[in-house]
Amino acid sequence: MCESKILHEVTAANDAYAADFGDKGKLALPPARGFAILTCMDARLDPAKYAGLAEGDAHVIRNAGGRASDDAIRSLVISHKLLGTKEWFVIHHTDCGMELFTTEIIGDLLADDLSTAHFDGKSWSNPQHKGGSVAGRYINWLTIRDLAGSVIEDVRRIRSHPLVPGDIPVYGFIYDVRTGRLIEVPDATAAGKIVA
Amino acid sequence: MCESKILHEVTAANDAYAADFGDKGKLALPPARGFAILTCMDARLDPAKYAGLAEGDAHVIRNAGGRASDDAIRSLVISHKLLGTKEWFVIHHTDCGMELFTTEIIGDLLADDLSTAHFDGKSWSNPQHKGGSVAGRYINWLTIRDLAGSVIEDVRRIRSHPLVPGDIPVYGFIYDVRTGRLIEVPDATAAGKIVA
Repeated sequence: MCESKILHEVTAANDAYAADFGDKGKLALPPARGFAILTCMDARLDPAKYAGLAEGDAHVIRNAGGRASDDAIRSLVISHKLLGTKEWFVIHHTDCGMELFTTEIIGDLLADDLSTAHFDGKSWSNPQHKGGSVAGRYINWLTIRDLAGSVIEDVRRIRSHPLVPGDIPVYGFIYDVRTGRLIEVPDATAAGKIVA
Repeated sequence: MCESKILHEVTAANDAYAADFGDKGKLALPPARGFAILTCMDARLDPAKYAGLAEGDAHVIRNAGGRASDDAIRSLVISHKLLGTKEWFVIHHTDCGMELFTTEIIGDLLADDLSTAHFDGKSWSNPQHKGGSVAGRYINWLTIRDLAGSVIEDVRRIRSHPLVPGDIPVYGFIYDVRTGRLIEVPDATAAGKIVA
């Protein structure tokens, strides 16, 4: 177990959490507050903290960018259809890594080498060139060109999905990593309003 | 803004968080502790708490089941290739909703009606029958039949993916929602060990 420092730290932190678990073991499966958040995997974001969630409150779906991918839609539909959530948030954030590359750039980098690339503040380069995989060229990486625009488009995609009922409001926000504040994107929330 | 109680509560909680944001606005984009966690969207799970993460530490990817979907792989590859994470965790959990249905069951439910279904402890039924969408039949819902088995398969899928370099260890765990404890799945971690 302890070959890895990270593995040791994570299990030690978990021991401390479990030792003071209290009544949390009695929580029910469906989210008590009946909503779901779709947001980015970014390390600086803690949705439980920035949105005030206790264990048991809400579903949290996270991927690179907080995008309304097919898999995020799968999760949101399960969240409503089987577990009863009635309101959804799409929350992207400032200084997102998804704004720093394109599907073409990561396809080229991965075809050349799989190890971590270097970013000089303007462009990416591979320190090694051991030969990567062309598999990256067959993936849509869902990068972001325009931050507010990506929130609006993701809300629109969710709103117009055939498996999403019209009575679920979808709110669009941007989290500011410099201030910790959620800033509403009014055009997104408007696009996500309840429809007949 | 305040038509919705949830929207009001979330923005009020965010105001309190942002008011005491401290130095977190200076955190860098790449995860400081260099790892990523793939886990379930379940409301009872707080990965930051159960694994001891502060803001800025690690990427957190979440979907229904914590499954190694195409979109989770997209996120993990970005996490390593562009943002430098070097170790990954796959963490499913006990009492997961994904064990309570099959792709066929949710396909049938959605084809009949989109609103939330009822579960009587054994089977699902629709309270309404307004006509749903057949779109659900074209989605693989990535349900779970065997909990440890799903962790092992997800780790195997990540390990064998052409865009995942062999020097990233992938650890497999189950989070126990009754105790808060992370329990390693040794066969998963073995399947996820570094390869030449």
